[in-house]
Amino acid sequence: MDTSRSPVTLNELADRFGGEVTGDGSVRLSALGTLERAEKGQLSFLANSKYRRQLADSKASAVIVGEADRDATTLPRIVTPHPYLYFARVAAFFFPPPPIVPGVHRSAVVEAGSAIGSSSSVGALAYVGKDVVVGERCMISNHVSIADGVTLGDDCRLFAGVVIYADCHIGSRVILHSGVVIGADGFGLAPDQGRWVKIPQGGRVIIGDDVEIGANTTVDRGALDDTVLEEGVKLDNQIQVGHNVQIGAHTAIAGCAGLAGSAKIGKRCTIGGSAGISGHIELCDDVHVSAFTMISKSITKPGRYTSQLPQMTHAEWRNSAPYIRRLDDLAAELKALQKRTAKG
Amino acid sequence: MDTSRSPVTLNELADRFGGEVTGDGSVRLSALGTLERAEKGQLSFLANSKYRRQLADSKASAVIVGEADRDATTLPRIVTPHPYLYFARVAAFFFPPPPIVPGVHRSAVVEAGSAIGSSSSVGALAYVGKDVVVGERCMISNHVSIADGVTLGDDCRLFAGVVIYADCHIGSRVILHSGVVIGADGFGLAPDQGRWVKIPQGGRVIIGDDVEIGANTTVDRGALDDTVLEEGVKLDNQIQVGHNVQIGAHTAIAGCAGLAGSAKIGKRCTIGGSAGISGHIELCDDVHVSAFTMISKSITKPGRYTSQLPQMTHAEWRNSAPYIRRLDDLAAELKALQKRTAKG
Amino acid sequence: MDTSRSPVTLNELADRFGGEVTGDGSVRLSALGTLERAEKGQLSFLANSKYRRQLADSKASAVIVGEADRDATTLPRIVTPHPYLYFARVAAFFFPPPPIVPGVHRSAVVEAGSAIGSSSSVGALAYVGKDVVVGERCMISNHVSIADGVTLGDDCRLFAGVVIYADCHIGSRVILHSGVVIGADGFGLAPDQGRWVKIPQGGRVIIGDDVEIGANTTVDRGALDDTVLEEGVKLDNQIQVGHNVQIGAHTAIAGCAGLAGSAKIGKRCTIGGSAGISGHIELCDDVHVSAFTMISKSITKPGRYTSQLPQMTHAEWRNSAPYIRRLDDLAAELKALQKRTAKG
Repeated sequence: MDTSRSPVTLNELADRFGGEVTGDGSVRLSALGTLERAEKGQLSFLANSKYRRQLADSKASAVIVGEADRDATTLPRIVTPHPYLYFARVAAFFFPPPPIVPGVHRSAVVEAGSAIGSSSSVGALAYVGKDVVVGERCMISNHVSIADGVTLGDDCRLFAGVVIYADCHIGSRVILHSGVVIGADGFGLAPDQGRWVKIPQGGRVIIGDDVEIGANTTVDRGALDDTVLEEGVKLDNQIQVGHNVQIGAHTAIAGCAGLAGSAKIGKRCTIGGSAGISGHIELCDDVHVSAFTMISKSITKPGRYTSQLPQMTHAEWRNSAPYIRRLDDLAAELKALQKRTAKG
Repeated sequence: MDTSRSPVTLNELADRFGGEVTGDGSVRLSALGTLERAEKGQLSFLANSKYRRQLADSKASAVIVGEADRDATTLPRIVTPHPYLYFARVAAFFFPPPPIVPGVHRSAVVEAGSAIGSSSSVGALAYVGKDVVVGERCMISNHVSIADGVTLGDDCRLFAGVVIYADCHIGSRVILHSGVVIGADGFGLAPDQGRWVKIPQGGRVIIGDDVEIGANTTVDRGALDDTVLEEGVKLDNQIQVGHNVQIGAHTAIAGCAGLAGSAKIGKRCTIGGSAGISGHIELCDDVHVSAFTMISKSITKPGRYTSQLPQMTHAEWRNSAPYIRRLDDLAAELKALQKRTAKG
Repeated sequence: MDTSRSPVTLNELADRFGGEVTGDGSVRLSALGTLERAEKGQLSFLANSKYRRQLADSKASAVIVGEADRDATTLPRIVTPHPYLYFARVAAFFFPPPPIVPGVHRSAVVEAGSAIGSSSSVGALAYVGKDVVVGERCMISNHVSIADGVTLGDDCRLFAGVVIYADCHIGSRVILHSGVVIGADGFGLAPDQGRWVKIPQGGRVIIGDDVEIGANTTVDRGALDDTVLEEGVKLDNQIQVGHNVQIGAHTAIAGCAGLAGSAKIGKRCTIGGSAGISGHIELCDDVHVSAFTMISKSITKPGRYTSQLPQMTHAEWRNSAPYIRRLDDLAAELKALQKRTAKG
């Protein structure tokens, strides 16, 4: 990817994004790079002081650093309270999303009754069903499939192969990556004498503004009520969101996590990779679930929750693991011993 | 989703689906709703007595209840031994699947030698390979891809973007959701001096009648024999089914579970979300595996199996987890102490 | 799948692939089968002596066996030091990949400025963006989506619905199964007063020669540097590979595993199904991670690492699991008891 652009000076960046320039502010920068790999003409950043060591060896022409690292380098630098956030803004300046070429590709299929904003694009071989509404400046990439009755706000970006089932609603500035499936049927089954009877899923998925969803993540439609992702929710790849789940604003969830049906997640939560949330439970605002942790009971107190096995060599595991299954016996033996020796 | 329909009375529902009407059977119902959100004119249900409290506040015009909750409300109601199953049937009446418009969309590509039932539909931009057989009343949605030699029974519904590899067989009344991949190569590798040599996967996937598979679930083809899902199997989203797996009739598996190659699952089993089943093992009929549980040895006795870490705060975990790795030492120390104090 | 071919004799196979023929080398073989299911005219194999019992009952006409099983059957046989590897080679001979019919399907969309090898095929309804380079003898199946600036080597096979984002590089002899997404944005977010600011992802994905990636697996593009899969890496289905991950040559990873951002995996490692690797850690060469195991700290010593809960009945689990959370208390009580009784 050619990530270079016409050069800007450190002073120009500070004019645009704030921060304090220290050293030669006239240094010209045409690309971004990590501390280890940046070359002359590139801007880098140090977000975490524990990697300060990399600063010394960096060939970057300038860096973004926090207050604590103000004097950790002699490179020209921008000092800012939040260097990672600052980097995010600069990166958006260096890597603007590709421009949208308005119009519907000749190979796309758009059913009658759809209203697509005139500044939006519908890519090659995409499908747009009946009564779909798409706002302005949206990018509907090739092979995207939007079923009847779906509505999208403005400035959305749907990458190749996204699927949205009928009647779902997507807000503005939403990014859906390839392979995302929004609105498939939830897993609703009633037992009937050893067989399963399907519960039709009559709800929708409602996605708020500024949501981003990673590749191959699935969000099921509600059974009767809707599945809801509030504004600013960020989902990584390969996540499963069951029917009737509600995810509060600005919650972020890492890859491979699973949220079972009717779970309710608060605002500003974070859920680690491969974590699991049981159905019908509730997490209050500001809960942080570690990776590989299963939450099976509601949480009413903000904080971090972790249930991981410690890392072990196979030999350690082979010796220790069998005792996990008989911890109740060990505890009982210990108690018996306590009693016996106390008497003695 | 406009889930309303021309109204029916409670009596009419009871005529059609059975159950005992209590209260005003002439009440007119045009939609379904949950107890919390149902409005006037809507029918709700109470499947589990522990949510009985919601019944009191519900604005539903009528409810479906079990025998135990017969007198828990004064709303007009249908009393039935299995209220959830009853609701499933009523929901299918309120939310019938959209009608199939027979024919092949002009933008679809259908190769020569395929036979598609005249009452079936092939959607926009779909692909159907050579020598494919599709029965009657099937919905092949837009962007579906069916490779050479695949056969489908009647009344199947394949949602946008489903992929079926060559030569697989799909029964009747099968539902495949978007992103499902049937028949990709299994993970077969032979080591050869530090490199891997691919084992070609020459088997198929055979899917029985009345199977439903959730979004982005993958079922690999067999290496030599076939991967088989018997009738009535229900798979949720994001599940991986390895090559040569056999899943017995009416087994249901929740999201993100993984079944390694050549595992054999019995009939009427349930497997919880994110659970894992090792390769080459066998679960007898009527085994229930809890969420987040790994099964690495064959199970010959029906029942429930669970291996989850208990839910912990991060502080509890930080204190306790290190001891898991040295449980063998704790057990040895305990034993030594028992001996020593016994001698004394 | 019709897996039969014009018959070959055991002698002809040995001429081609080596090994020692024992018994009637003129036996004619037209298909492969497992020991349990092989019929007359089929060749089978015994890769693991523990299944030797199946050899006795097999109806195969000939078998491939290791030195140790040389005399375990009277069937005509090829004796070889590595029967599974031998079988892999024979299977490639019996199940050659379907021939590629060069050319671009009339329904595919190929943008200007792309260069596609004349012996390669682009299937129905596929999309190829600008400035894409595809080598010789590649199969780009139907519904594949290749964005601008992607390069592919020779002899690649991309199955239906694969998506490759802009500017990624794919080596030669790479196999990508349906639903694979290469190069979607990594999960990069900077916190800003309770909201998340997206970090644009300006790196690429670089995939070496002889890599195979299973259905619905996702590999994210780097943030600044690239995500790299070295030659011979094999990924199963439903795996998530985060941004900036590096995977060393000939490492194999089983289904549903998750690798968080910037993890670095050595060469010739194996990672089991549903395992998790934390971000920013490093595994040296020749590390083997068991299924369902989370690795949260770097590993500098080759070997096997395992952290699984033992398999339990639900009753065993209910009794034992609560003690896991208070292992620190049990250890403290044990220590106190040791002290007290030692004094006595």
